[in-house]
Amino acid sequence: MAETSIDSLKGTLAQKRASAEAQGQAVRALKASGASPSEVESAVNSLKALKVEVEALSKELNSRVSENGGGNRDDFRQGVVNALERRLFYIPSFKIYRGVAGLYDYGPPGCAVKSNVLAFWREHFVLEENMLEVDCPCVTPEVVLKASGHVDKFTDLMVKDEKTGTCYRADHLLKDFCKDKLEKDLTLPEEKAMEYKRVMATLDDLSGKELGSKLKEYGIVAPDTKNPLSDPYPFNLMFATSIGPSGLSPGYMRPETAQGIFVNFKDLYYYNGNKLPFAAAQIGQAFRNEISPRQGLLRVREFTLAEIEHFVDPDDKSHPKFKDVSNLEFFMYPRDEQKEAKPFKKLQLGDAVKKGNINNETLGYFIGRTYLFLTSLGIDKERLRFRQHMANEMAHYAADCWDAEIESSYGWIECVGIADRSAYDLRAHTEKSGVQLVAQEKFAEPREVEKLVITPSKKEVGLVFKGNQKKVIEALEAMKEAKAMEVRANLEAKGEVEFFVCTLGQSVTLTKNMVSISKEKKKEHQKVFIPSVIEPSFGIGRIIYCLFEHSFYTRPSKAGDEQCNVFRFPPLVAPIKCTVFPLIQKSEYEEVAKLISKALTRARISHKIDITGTSIGKRYARTDELGVPFAITVDSSNSVTVRERDSKDQVRVSVDEVASVVKDVTDGDSTWTDILSRYPLHSSYSSDEGVLIGDIHSKS
Amino acid sequence: MAETSIDSLKGTLAQKRASAEAQGQAVRALKASGASPSEVESAVNSLKALKVEVEALSKELNSRVSENGGGNRDDFRQGVVNALERRLFYIPSFKIYRGVAGLYDYGPPGCAVKSNVLAFWREHFVLEENMLEVDCPCVTPEVVLKASGHVDKFTDLMVKDEKTGTCYRADHLLKDFCKDKLEKDLTLPEEKAMEYKRVMATLDDLSGKELGSKLKEYGIVAPDTKNPLSDPYPFNLMFATSIGPSGLSPGYMRPETAQGIFVNFKDLYYYNGNKLPFAAAQIGQAFRNEISPRQGLLRVREFTLAEIEHFVDPDDKSHPKFKDVSNLEFFMYPRDEQKEAKPFKKLQLGDAVKKGNINNETLGYFIGRTYLFLTSLGIDKERLRFRQHMANEMAHYAADCWDAEIESSYGWIECVGIADRSAYDLRAHTEKSGVQLVAQEKFAEPREVEKLVITPSKKEVGLVFKGNQKKVIEALEAMKEAKAMEVRANLEAKGEVEFFVCTLGQSVTLTKNMVSISKEKKKEHQKVFIPSVIEPSFGIGRIIYCLFEHSFYTRPSKAGDEQCNVFRFPPLVAPIKCTVFPLIQKSEYEEVAKLISKALTRARISHKIDITGTSIGKRYARTDELGVPFAITVDSSNSVTVRERDSKDQVRVSVDEVASVVKDVTDGDSTWTDILSRYPLHSSYSSDEGVLIGDIHSKS
Repeated sequence: MAETSIDSLKGTLAQKRASAEAQGQAVRALKASGASPSEVESAVNSLKALKVEVEALSKELNSRVSENGGGNRDDFRQGVVNALERRLFYIPSFKIYRGVAGLYDYGPPGCAVKSNVLAFWREHFVLEENMLEVDCPCVTPEVVLKASGHVDKFTDLMVKDEKTGTCYRADHLLKDFCKDKLEKDLTLPEEKAMEYKRVMATLDDLSGKELGSKLKEYGIVAPDTKNPLSDPYPFNLMFATSIGPSGLSPGYMRPETAQGIFVNFKDLYYYNGNKLPFAAAQIGQAFRNEISPRQGLLRVREFTLAEIEHFVDPDDKSHPKFKDVSNLEFFMYPRDEQKEAKPFKKLQLGDAVKKGNINNETLGYFIGRTYLFLTSLGIDKERLRFRQHMANEMAHYAADCWDAEIESSYGWIECVGIADRSAYDLRAHTEKSGVQLVAQEKFAEPREVEKLVITPSKKEVGLVFKGNQKKVIEALEAMKEAKAMEVRANLEAKGEVEFFVCTLGQSVTLTKNMVSISKEKKKEHQKVFIPSVIEPSFGIGRIIYCLFEHSFYTRPSKAGDEQCNVFRFPPLVAPIKCTVFPLIQKSEYEEVAKLISKALTRARISHKIDITGTSIGKRYARTDELGVPFAITVDSSNSVTVRERDSKDQVRVSVDEVASVVKDVTDGDSTWTDILSRYPLHSSYSSDEGVLIGDIHSKS
Repeated sequence: MAETSIDSLKGTLAQKRASAEAQGQAVRALKASGASPSEVESAVNSLKALKVEVEALSKELNSRVSENGGGNRDDFRQGVVNALERRLFYIPSFKIYRGVAGLYDYGPPGCAVKSNVLAFWREHFVLEENMLEVDCPCVTPEVVLKASGHVDKFTDLMVKDEKTGTCYRADHLLKDFCKDKLEKDLTLPEEKAMEYKRVMATLDDLSGKELGSKLKEYGIVAPDTKNPLSDPYPFNLMFATSIGPSGLSPGYMRPETAQGIFVNFKDLYYYNGNKLPFAAAQIGQAFRNEISPRQGLLRVREFTLAEIEHFVDPDDKSHPKFKDVSNLEFFMYPRDEQKEAKPFKKLQLGDAVKKGNINNETLGYFIGRTYLFLTSLGIDKERLRFRQHMANEMAHYAADCWDAEIESSYGWIECVGIADRSAYDLRAHTEKSGVQLVAQEKFAEPREVEKLVITPSKKEVGLVFKGNQKKVIEALEAMKEAKAMEVRANLEAKGEVEFFVCTLGQSVTLTKNMVSISKEKKKEHQKVFIPSVIEPSFGIGRIIYCLFEHSFYTRPSKAGDEQCNVFRFPPLVAPIKCTVFPLIQKSEYEEVAKLISKALTRARISHKIDITGTSIGKRYARTDELGVPFAITVDSSNSVTVRERDSKDQVRVSVDEVASVVKDVTDGDSTWTDILSRYPLHSSYSSDEGVLIGDIHSKS
């Protein structure tokens, strides 16, 4: 892990610096105490040696940082992005009108990758787990997002360039400043470094006022103009609109798909036969009106989410299929390890749940399934980690939360959030709508429970408190158990008690005849409760972008004069599974190519036929850059060759068989190794450049 | 066709009425002329006979109308909608907050149907035709929709209830009024009926002012309150929003997906190797802020569109695959037949193109492919017609336009529009963006063309016309060939000519020295042109709703005491392909059911396992109402039965084979008839109610 070794380098550097400082003090102390010149000299020499070491480590770190987070990363990213844009994997939207920041189109291959990823998501989650998939509108009335908290809290703190009006995210400016200092200023005193680190770690906790004073303290100005900045103020990130013609029904474009599921809980629970647990799922567009989008496809204003809401009894979060994933081992970064700044490491999922790192089996199950999902797509398991949220990162109601983070040239990117949100969402909508979003569980045998019974005497309360009767009675009925017991004890002991009535803003004196308080044993036949929800939420665009980076590599052309781009997509993801090339322009070969194309269409293998006269090497290179895993080259009427993209190996297969061979290997029923063992290797024109036409002709 | 016979009935009635009127005049004339009593009596008897006929026809028509457009249709619809909502095919969105008109959620089975329809659309169009699929954002900056004309023209005329402020679509109120009169007032004089019909036919052509005066003339008031209405005024149907934090970048939620394709034309043309024709496609959400949505799923504020933009050389709209569809015969309703109020009838597609009913082969090809698409989904071909737009319905730039209309309980519903939009869209974006959205076609051999060359003399024009120099020169350069030749002829003959300059609003006198006009022969190596676009646009939600209606039927339960609902979805569309039931609750059967379930998952057949103890008949009825085509019932450890939904036939298949049998028949590789011939029919408990447990037990 490149990042880890940089971290350890930083650690060593910090130690050496501390030693050098200590040694400096020692030298000063020696001088002050009038020690002998030889003593002083020896101490000074030690100090010098330490300083040389510090210097060397600084340089080393400097070069490592720029190699990793700087130059090479940027170069790599530029290479990927160039290939992606040139081959229309994606395109900045509305380019002919100079575009809109944060909006991108998927062009044909990108769109195919996206629809493959979504189809696999459906198969891996919805079908496999029998989830209830729903499809709700993006336009959402205000009341729903008021209940969910988005209207009030879905904001970022914004500052404006005081002269040009350009807007910036306040926390980004502060973060950039600190990061820049930490990465580039290698002579930064440890004390300052600690401060910047602390600021970065607590960025999300800073109030607008605190952020503002930090920006002032550090003298941060508008990055583009160096103009002064306004104080930070909250900007709501939802796209606002108005529903219907009256202008009286405010609405928003949904910031997530989850709310559509929560508001349908009752119907879905009924659909599931009134049984828990069950999961609902939704794939759809979500919208965030980012203040100043950056990081290309990673921070956009409109994106596709695939979300699961798994509803479960809060008293039983076990999962029957947990054992299917418990043996998986992968990188995890529990809260405690982060606190102690330890590196993340491989843990076994079963252990992580057993040891309590992960709150419960259901959460663990989805972490495991997410790991399988991402790695099946082609995400490098060495650059994938599950990081637990720190206590201060989580919403107050969340029981636990883990992000699947994928390492890209932008660093570690949150691509999937897997949160145990407890009963928060259903409770919020129950309160706002007045519709009980609850589950009932019938007990096998009735259970005996003790229940608090508070019975105010309307008459007695009314006689004394007149117009305040109702408020006093409501306050009495609302007492929690402990308070009620205290009131009862006092009434029994003294006959009266001072009782504070919130809605009156004052205490009243209660007497014994005004209320009876008791505990009664009752038989309950069922429990009624608000289910907990465990929410895995997938940012599809982010996953796809990271997949692009993880799949990209270059290799020299046969002639060695240029670098060719390759995307090593697995067949599952590849935009086109197979190309069909007649080796040379010859009507006989074209006919065979068309026959094969028909067979591939019947087998539902997406493919492309290329009958241009371009050299076979160039045609291979073109499709390698689209990530097409297999190429069929027609060089005779009876048999053809099948080439695998990454090994460039070719086998010879009969025309009749070739579609089913390609189908087997793209569907995952065979591996390329199986194919290699089953069919003869073909070697004559495995060259990626040119071809000996005479040699080939003699075959057909 | 019920509608057709109503129309012909109306025709006969009108004829008889005219005859009766003529006879009445004849009687009056006879009386006035003092004809003999026997002559008068005979004429009066004829008149009476005619009046009896008119009366009878009126009654007949009356009952037909209410049967078709009234009671029964409403009852049928209510039955479908009840089943759909109860089984969560769809749900009014945000129901717990009392919903929002025009917004619906697809629940689990509806969502599955939708994703099956979209997957098949992709296969049938995108894959089969090698289309370039793209995926663009919904949020769209104003400039794009300004260019497309939506900002200025995507409006409906609205009137407000002057007291409550409730908004209505002005044309809907007028249409409802006329329709109501025509359908319910059977004593309506022919003259008035003609007027109402004319109003309905020209509804789309009425200006706000004309609409307003019609509303006044007919005394139309607010339907809910009977309050007076405001004058009509335009309301833009796009959901407006603001992009970014500045408030300075207006945007809209796209009203169609097409614009995303047009603005990318250049990149897509390049991606296609700079070759025409090619088609791009997009599936995605579109938004219309309807004034007052009604008609359930048919008129909604957010919906899924699947659109194709097929770019083609305007001089060659032939299609190489037209012959694949030219033999298809289905209902078409060409413009001329509509004009003459003839019924629509079956035409052969090839003939319709040959005779010029359909403008060109490419348009015809997509009409044919759309017919195949819709009928494969299960749309009844007897309730599907392709109706050509009347000249006044089409945009001025459109070359031809056909709607696929599906008959539902709401009447004939436009579900797919297939339009030849000529070069309109690309020209509009070329003009607005300044980016040339054009194609080049290299000629095999350079072509000699005659070109008009107009060279005004700036000096001479300036000397005479001074400040108007520029306008005169522009007018000269803008002359079309015919005009230019006329000017040249006049200048040569008379030495001067009167020339009208539009921008000056007057004629000027040109002399020979002011302009030289000639025709020159030039060699051209390529032509540069704006491609025409043929646009098939599919309203997915409307298609699905009509499919629900066409698939729905009821049949009596075995006991005959209730009606059971069935959706006869083909396997392609069915939300779940198969259910697995253990016949009775028995762990041995449950194990077999689980084994089969695993095999089905491996075969990617969506299915549901139901191990509740409910009677097998009830379980069948439940899945029939979800449109599940096959049910596997486990009644032994070796073999199971497979039941087909509509015939209720059952065959016996071994446990090992059953998943592949179901896969064959759901993938369309076998038909149910094939299966019936291959496996033994099972009859013992084909009963849908109850089961003789003893009888079954003895088998296992």
